[in-house]
Amino acid sequence: MSTHDLETQRHSASHILATAVLELFPDAKLGTGPATETGFFYDFLLPRALTPEDLKKIEEKMREIIKANYPFEKAVINIDTAVEKFGSLGQLYKVELLEDLKDEGEKEVSVYHSGPFVDLCRGPHVDSTGEIPAQGMKLDRMSGAYWKSDEKRDQMQRIYGLLFEDKKALKKYLADREEAKKRDHRVLGKELDLFSFSDMVGSGLPLWSPKGTVLRTQLQNRLTEISSKYDMLPVTIPHIGKRILYETSGHAQKFGDELLTVHSHYDTFCLKPVNCPHHTQIYASRPRSYRDLPLRYMESTMQYRDEKPGEIGGLTRVRSITCDDGHVFCRVDQIEEEAKRIAKIIEEFYTPLGLFGNHWVSLSVRDPKTPDAYVGEPKDWDMAESMLEKISNDFSLNAKRVEGEAAIYGPKLDYMFKDSLGREWQLATIQIDFAMPKRFKLSYTETDGSAQTPVMIHRAILGSYERFLAILIEHYAGAFPLWLSPVQVVVLPVSEKFLDYAKSVVEKLKSAGIRTELHGEDESLGKRIRIAEKQKTPLIAVVGEREVASETLAIRQRSDIELFGSEPVSLDEFRGKVQKEM
Amino acid sequence: MSTHDLETQRHSASHILATAVLELFPDAKLGTGPATETGFFYDFLLPRALTPEDLKKIEEKMREIIKANYPFEKAVINIDTAVEKFGSLGQLYKVELLEDLKDEGEKEVSVYHSGPFVDLCRGPHVDSTGEIPAQGMKLDRMSGAYWKSDEKRDQMQRIYGLLFEDKKALKKYLADREEAKKRDHRVLGKELDLFSFSDMVGSGLPLWSPKGTVLRTQLQNRLTEISSKYDMLPVTIPHIGKRILYETSGHAQKFGDELLTVHSHYDTFCLKPVNCPHHTQIYASRPRSYRDLPLRYMESTMQYRDEKPGEIGGLTRVRSITCDDGHVFCRVDQIEEEAKRIAKIIEEFYTPLGLFGNHWVSLSVRDPKTPDAYVGEPKDWDMAESMLEKISNDFSLNAKRVEGEAAIYGPKLDYMFKDSLGREWQLATIQIDFAMPKRFKLSYTETDGSAQTPVMIHRAILGSYERFLAILIEHYAGAFPLWLSPVQVVVLPVSEKFLDYAKSVVEKLKSAGIRTELHGEDESLGKRIRIAEKQKTPLIAVVGEREVASETLAIRQRSDIELFGSEPVSLDEFRGKVQKEM
Repeated sequence: MSTHDLETQRHSASHILATAVLELFPDAKLGTGPATETGFFYDFLLPRALTPEDLKKIEEKMREIIKANYPFEKAVINIDTAVEKFGSLGQLYKVELLEDLKDEGEKEVSVYHSGPFVDLCRGPHVDSTGEIPAQGMKLDRMSGAYWKSDEKRDQMQRIYGLLFEDKKALKKYLADREEAKKRDHRVLGKELDLFSFSDMVGSGLPLWSPKGTVLRTQLQNRLTEISSKYDMLPVTIPHIGKRILYETSGHAQKFGDELLTVHSHYDTFCLKPVNCPHHTQIYASRPRSYRDLPLRYMESTMQYRDEKPGEIGGLTRVRSITCDDGHVFCRVDQIEEEAKRIAKIIEEFYTPLGLFGNHWVSLSVRDPKTPDAYVGEPKDWDMAESMLEKISNDFSLNAKRVEGEAAIYGPKLDYMFKDSLGREWQLATIQIDFAMPKRFKLSYTETDGSAQTPVMIHRAILGSYERFLAILIEHYAGAFPLWLSPVQVVVLPVSEKFLDYAKSVVEKLKSAGIRTELHGEDESLGKRIRIAEKQKTPLIAVVGEREVASETLAIRQRSDIELFGSEPVSLDEFRGKVQKEM
Repeated sequence: MSTHDLETQRHSASHILATAVLELFPDAKLGTGPATETGFFYDFLLPRALTPEDLKKIEEKMREIIKANYPFEKAVINIDTAVEKFGSLGQLYKVELLEDLKDEGEKEVSVYHSGPFVDLCRGPHVDSTGEIPAQGMKLDRMSGAYWKSDEKRDQMQRIYGLLFEDKKALKKYLADREEAKKRDHRVLGKELDLFSFSDMVGSGLPLWSPKGTVLRTQLQNRLTEISSKYDMLPVTIPHIGKRILYETSGHAQKFGDELLTVHSHYDTFCLKPVNCPHHTQIYASRPRSYRDLPLRYMESTMQYRDEKPGEIGGLTRVRSITCDDGHVFCRVDQIEEEAKRIAKIIEEFYTPLGLFGNHWVSLSVRDPKTPDAYVGEPKDWDMAESMLEKISNDFSLNAKRVEGEAAIYGPKLDYMFKDSLGREWQLATIQIDFAMPKRFKLSYTETDGSAQTPVMIHRAILGSYERFLAILIEHYAGAFPLWLSPVQVVVLPVSEKFLDYAKSVVEKLKSAGIRTELHGEDESLGKRIRIAEKQKTPLIAVVGEREVASETLAIRQRSDIELFGSEPVSLDEFRGKVQKEM
């Protein structure tokens, strides 16, 4: 067992990788080789493209080097000596790195020897190659990489390796990765026909099929329903606004190049990157008095950002972001009550998804080291931060105080949820904002007739529908709970003889608001069942001779659903149980 | 009584107006003076701005001329003689018109004399000024107008007159106009707090308050509910697409300057002016077979057009148009069934609004004189036109065949509805389109394995939400039917003593899904009732001593609502009846 941490082991393994490659390809030119979150990589310029066969040989060679148990030895040498040394070895990239260091004023550098290999390196390393847990190591894959990530420089070959503490940890990682791959929302999105992309529409702009739209609508309905209990009411805004709107709010400066501008013949518009400025204008549309407050607006609406094509991927980073946005305009003495209402909405929304409880909350406050980086009065900040702390206590949120995580305009409570793969996501948020109402000169008339500035609370429950659905698809591996499932019931007649009965069942279930499909094609029953199962259909109702005679359905339920026994059920019972479960 | 039609009378009245103005202002230079839909106008260049006093004097003078019963006498004269004649009268605009006619090759022109007045005019006219029904005439208003509508030419003064067959018809028109003014959706939109505009957001971009959003949501829910009965399912698309999408569809050329382009650093996007191209891309997202068809997509989504600021007004012409759009992709043999389904949706949607029946349908076909103005094969057109005719017959739509009203890509059935003010609106539409699927190379696999092009049917039920709501607000004068009302019930405690009971009533009604507000402010009960009535609240529930004791509500219902008698009703009965009515 190594006494060094995994990161050090991983870094050391990258040296072993380079040693092995040099033994097999003595002319290899070395780039750099750091540790990664799961292992290590090293970049090489090689006389030919590597094959999977080569990777096996390299891995074997690495195991030999580990067995040889060469010590890692550090030496600090004069930088010119180092240039000479690596120059004589023909390692021109290393020489270039040394010249860079010289330009930065370095006089000496450290190099690490391990057996036949020497590398320019800051370290630290394990004591000897034998410390690397060979059973937890595996060369994983290759990719291309530009020297210094500059596409104008040489293209090198990058070899990725995995390294974990032992064989068991490596196997677990590989199994988890396999599971994540099966759950990949991009793959499932296609298989389950939820969303697609079109080259003609553009990247980062998902098109939602009827099935995918059911997911969106169900989430939106649930959100609206819970929010309306707490008197948050939907409003509707357009997707563009004059540039002055974002100059006033500060978003033009904040988003800079990400802001999409719209060419009109009559005005300069932008596609909204956020929704708050529009909502301030609904507030400002009529005079408000202390009696009118709080005003609570919510909306699920698309906002747009000019994301770089390279950063766009699946639903996690898109250009058309459907934001579940909400803004409360209130008096200072109402902040606490309003923030509590939002905390309740968050709890009620996440509990049935099985995510509440499996979360922690960050009380994101200013970085005390950079007090000038924030908009607004320090006394307002002090008050808002302590108010959120009070809410966290009153609500048993046990928020962790995280300095420097506040938005520039105010402190916030950020909710972090863990999905079924153990990944953590920042989703819901409650943010106090003293700045924006002032920027837009919003006001209300106080009891004494004076004009006062309201406070604004920004809230998101699920954040962006696209990102949330990416998480949810992977969380459930596409097997959505009944209420959320795009298709809840598939009805399968055993043969064409029973098609009429099957059709009448479908009609009755549909008119009861149950999302039902009839699969009465030519294929065999077995094949139709397999297709419905592959689509993760919660309930499959098969109808044949017995069912027609007794006016029942034979139900096959998905493994996680426990609504029915093995006996056929009457249509009424089936309909009733499904409706209740929804 | 005149034997000439009203339009001829109106045109003749414009000559009488000019005669009167010339008598009062001998130096007046005359522009032109046609009949309008409600009367007539005439443009004048005058030595000074007219006052309302002048208008009265001119009207009196007109009545004298009518009484004098001058005959209208037509003379056809050589055009050069006419130039000389009008030149000597100093009527330089008339001379300019004559020169224009000369340039077009005219040799002779007709002039009309009536008493002291002569005008260059094609006619026809009444026989004598006495035929004009003076009791149905009234000078209405003035405005500025450029000679030949060219803002670089002289600005003239335009006098508008009203002319109807008799005093009764004139009074009715004035009363109707007064009513329309009271019903103006821009005025009611503000009074009822439904929507607003912001200078910072931009003109033509309505912001919908919570109350206005209820109207939108209720309409959308109803549409979705009815459509889903006919298996039309919602999809979701972004609001931008690459320019190539609109070049392929032909909309880039069609909309030209109205197309809003979006500046991205990575691509050329447009704000979608229509939704069809995006929907074709959902169709194209996976291979389709004959068994998959029909595919029926629907969506309520905003589309954008760069309307001229001068043409924007209220909700009738906006830049952010929320379109209730739907597209069916089907086989040719399915067109009839699909068009019928849409016709059923239209009937089910408009009947409860009281608009169905009070409508007519246009079967909009090609103009036989310009067969080349249309996209697509003549044989496809023939088939589609006769199919729509068949549907019209099968469905007893009694569609009127209107030549030249087809879209460039296909024939259509357009539904024209009449509102409570008797105004006609083109709202619903069913359009067959053979062209767009070809442009996007859409296909499906036929039973024989061959690739076939589907047909596309465009459908709108309410058209644009903004325009539809403008009509509906004016149709109902803001007194929306119960199911549509933003606030359905206002609960008023007689005094603070009964506030707790009132609050419990509000909570119970709200949790039953009834949109309820509590108005328990300091104002007197009478004032609170008047406010609720002015807001056109369907039901006002007053609670005082008696109601608390008997656990009932005293109901004041809007005059058009007949749900309750004069006796107080129990909360259960009230809730039940309201829910049933919704």
